[in-house]
Amino acid sequence: MTRKRMTPAQRRAHLLEIGSSMFAELPYEDVWIEDVADRAGVSRGLMYHYFPSKREFFVEIVRTESARNLAATAPDTSLPVLEQVAAGLDAYIAYSDEHAHGVRAVNRGALLGDRLIDDILTQEFAVQQERILAALPAAFADDEMVRTALRGWIAFVRAVCLDWVERRTLDREQVRELCLRALSGLLEQ
Amino acid sequence: MTRKRMTPAQRRAHLLEIGSSMFAELPYEDVWIEDVADRAGVSRGLMYHYFPSKREFFVEIVRTESARNLAATAPDTSLPVLEQVAAGLDAYIAYSDEHAHGVRAVNRGALLGDRLIDDILTQEFAVQQERILAALPAAFADDEMVRTALRGWIAFVRAVCLDWVERRTLDREQVRELCLRALSGLLEQ
Repeated sequence: MTRKRMTPAQRRAHLLEIGSSMFAELPYEDVWIEDVADRAGVSRGLMYHYFPSKREFFVEIVRTESARNLAATAPDTSLPVLEQVAAGLDAYIAYSDEHAHGVRAVNRGALLGDRLIDDILTQEFAVQQERILAALPAAFADDEMVRTALRGWIAFVRAVCLDWVERRTLDREQVRELCLRALSGLLEQ
Repeated sequence: MTRKRMTPAQRRAHLLEIGSSMFAELPYEDVWIEDVADRAGVSRGLMYHYFPSKREFFVEIVRTESARNLAATAPDTSLPVLEQVAAGLDAYIAYSDEHAHGVRAVNRGALLGDRLIDDILTQEFAVQQERILAALPAAFADDEMVRTALRGWIAFVRAVCLDWVERRTLDREQVRELCLRALSGLLEQ
């Protein structure tokens, strides 16, 4: 492979893209940063210049994908709240499905409790929580029980998706139905 | 204080008891293992003989309390399933209330992602999940959606209790109601 001319920002984004694919294909433990460099057609030295360690590389991939996921799930506020939520939920389920290795690494494996990743995900879930609150009638949105219930529901979705990518005993539609059923139950008065 | 004669097992249990109180009173960061030794009336050397580090000491406290909580919440199988669950839930809420510093340390702070603690809690939650499944009619217990829903619900309870001990905007009764409402919603057909 020949090394293409890229600006540093392009190079960095390209490496993150390639890393994202590789961490989706293989368990975290089986991805070698040297292989990422090879696939990107750059020297290992250049790879380490951008990302000093596998862990830092992975954190930056999570950061990039979290921002992309939030942008991609910006709600259509003209829709009813449950449809807005369902759209975001579908995106999260699809992402978990396609990035099952990463989901496992973050929740069980090598990166369990990594503070930087935890901060990124906590922030992402807080945005999702605020989006749902914003879509609810004001009387709901000011209700501390609803606010807490949504925080719990997001943890529910995360746990259910983790269970699903680990065990694969349900299909996507069932995961979706379970999550929406839990939310409807919580929002009923 | 004079040092009482104890067998090693008694001494160890005594140190764990004192540690448990101190970690309940103070944030994890503010508990010093030397102060535990002082309060127990033992030398620091003896304290380190039993527990080489604060982290290992804390892990053993979590292990002891997890076993105690499971024993204390052994279900009364003569009761309807929601009453059995409510009893276990009340115990968990009370424990979180009284050990708020520990709940924060494990979920946010110094011990976020600690593998030993994660294993202990994962095991404890698996037992709770199995208990609820055992109390359900067989048609439920064999249903993969119910099994996954329960795993999600336990994550819900954990997240709600964490939110509660951090923010204290709800009272115990509201936390309880929220968790039971979520479960009822999931178990309705």
